[in-house]
Amino acid sequence: MAGFFVFRTFMDFSKLNGLVPAVIQDAESHEVLMVGFMNETALAHTRESGYVTFFSRTRNTLWTKGETSGNRLAVISMQVDCDEDTLLIQARREGAGNVCHTGARTCFFREIS
Amino acid sequence: MAGFFVFRTFMDFSKLNGLVPAVIQDAESHEVLMVGFMNETALAHTRESGYVTFFSRTRNTLWTKGETSGNRLAVISMQVDCDEDTLLIQARREGAGNVCHTGARTCFFREIS
Repeated sequence: MAGFFVFRTFMDFSKLNGLVPAVIQDAESHEVLMVGFMNETALAHTRESGYVTFFSRTRNTLWTKGETSGNRLAVISMQVDCDEDTLLIQARREGAGNVCHTGARTCFFREIS
Repeated sequence: MAGFFVFRTFMDFSKLNGLVPAVIQDAESHEVLMVGFMNETALAHTRESGYVTFFSRTRNTLWTKGETSGNRLAVISMQVDCDEDTLLIQARREGAGNVCHTGARTCFFREIS
């Protein structure tokens, strides 16, 4: 049908009020480092800049991880899940390599049972 | 103070209307298999049963992964992140070992750039 064109965004941002969870995994060690949320703008910024950028729910603004500390997360590759509502990002830790604000390498340092 | 007792749940369910994201990672291969959401009941069920149980946002009910297919996810260990709003679960794939409803081993099989 001439002139008919459906633009389909490749991610479903509708399930969490415009956000999708983004799991950050160390591309080398395969450790899960942290989970943040991205809106469409944060995802676009991440893809354009090559550095993980979240949407901060508490500050209500874009937040490039490590923008002040220098501990940025360089995107190595990105995967989207089957129902297109979650991102998995393989990343390289820059700077001191501490991802967590506590100074730990990963935010998941506490075991529960 | 006699009789005074503060119960503090160890997870913060307030940020997503009673839910927290739960990242499921293969305990052996370290592949990220899927991300689901848990409410307090789903987490309690997961800890008691030893099998990953989510809260299905679309069906509005508890959902033990693999309850019909047999492709259950046995909990090997669980970690909570620094601000207590996300879970990371190391799991062993049971049954045929396919986690994704498409038949794939992991839900994150599609690369984006």
